[in-house]
Amino acid sequence: MMARIGKLFGVGVGPGDPELVTMKTVRLIREAHVVAYLAARQRPSNARRAIESYLRPDHIELPMFYPVTTEKLPPPFSYEDALTKFYDESAATLAEHLDAGRDVAMLCEGDPFFYGSFMYYYHRLAERYETIVVPGVCAMVASAAVLGAPLVHQTQTLSVLSGVLSADELTQRLKVADAVAIMKLGSNFKKVRDVLDALGLSDRALYVERATMEAQKILPIAEVDDATVPYFSMILVPGLWNGR
Amino acid sequence: MMARIGKLFGVGVGPGDPELVTMKTVRLIREAHVVAYLAARQRPSNARRAIESYLRPDHIELPMFYPVTTEKLPPPFSYEDALTKFYDESAATLAEHLDAGRDVAMLCEGDPFFYGSFMYYYHRLAERYETIVVPGVCAMVASAAVLGAPLVHQTQTLSVLSGVLSADELTQRLKVADAVAIMKLGSNFKKVRDVLDALGLSDRALYVERATMEAQKILPIAEVDDATVPYFSMILVPGLWNGR
Repeated sequence: MMARIGKLFGVGVGPGDPELVTMKTVRLIREAHVVAYLAARQRPSNARRAIESYLRPDHIELPMFYPVTTEKLPPPFSYEDALTKFYDESAATLAEHLDAGRDVAMLCEGDPFFYGSFMYYYHRLAERYETIVVPGVCAMVASAAVLGAPLVHQTQTLSVLSGVLSADELTQRLKVADAVAIMKLGSNFKKVRDVLDALGLSDRALYVERATMEAQKILPIAEVDDATVPYFSMILVPGLWNGR
Repeated sequence: MMARIGKLFGVGVGPGDPELVTMKTVRLIREAHVVAYLAARQRPSNARRAIESYLRPDHIELPMFYPVTTEKLPPPFSYEDALTKFYDESAATLAEHLDAGRDVAMLCEGDPFFYGSFMYYYHRLAERYETIVVPGVCAMVASAAVLGAPLVHQTQTLSVLSGVLSADELTQRLKVADAVAIMKLGSNFKKVRDVLDALGLSDRALYVERATMEAQKILPIAEVDDATVPYFSMILVPGLWNGR
């Protein structure tokens, strides 16, 4: 008799609010033997918190801790190399569970394929194991909802930009977009705000931190302290309404 | 005693699969007195189908039928005018329910604020009535999930484009984007495919119809019959993986 091989589920858990998890993600977590998630050693996992009420004592919980980032690595090593090694090793751990016949649900903040780290595991495992991806509510649309801001209309173009782009690149891209979402702010916030100011877009730009989480904060963009902008923050420049 | 005024809930119901509805949308539909949705007279509503199992006999169901589109209107009237009148009148109907103290859940395919028609009602009603927007799984991330295609990575830029753009505009925007989603294909499909061909992007482009619905269809883009492309279809050009 062939041994049963487990399935891998990449499940989007939404932006933070436990009620913004889909029925399908809830079902697959309940049916899985192993619940895996990426985490930082220093703080609780947002993804785990969103689905905490569905965890059972007999679930095998598998937090996968990112390598410590504070130490400067001696050349020729880099943080990127350390990350690649970490993805390789944690994917091997997932594969052990799958080979043993255990289904694994990997929790993904927001959506697994929209800037999600699940792709590192998908690339390593999807050819060898049956893999099912469950889409989720991404932080971008959750931010629009809590800001009360229709994001993009009819035939408008939406650009999703990373705050790490240079001021020049941001400027070029902002000039041609009807609506914009800017992610990965953190230490890039000041640069992004300066670009929006220079383009006269600050009046249309909206800012939110930790949308739908308990610690959600909405601030006028001019009042944001650029020293304390978290990773889970976003600027939206909604498309203009045509008045209809 | 003040009469109770109803609340308006704009609830994302996701891309079609009834399991891709969030817990919050389910709860608010259950708690609402009125369940409203936009619909075409000729065919069943996709949004209603996604949440059908949560409807009760005592729900007031309020389908709002788009004006018939086949007749050419005599000048100075236009279909746009007819639509504006339709939004005004259907918003007034919603307001009657709210004034009578009934909570209204308006169903929104995908997400309410991501190219959603809910914005027409939000603009008309949100200042007068307490309005809560519940984000949903949008068709874009659902398409990436069923295609097994990580859409956008790390610091990449994602452009969400409408197929109605001209070939020139599409070309300019495709040239500078790392990852692309092209919506509103339908009769624009041939133009879009020609542009992708000319840019050498056809090999990376993926096509899906009715992602997560029962009638979902995935086809190589070269094999799509451009005469039969439905509104609910999408092309994705995923960002390139850096191999890590």
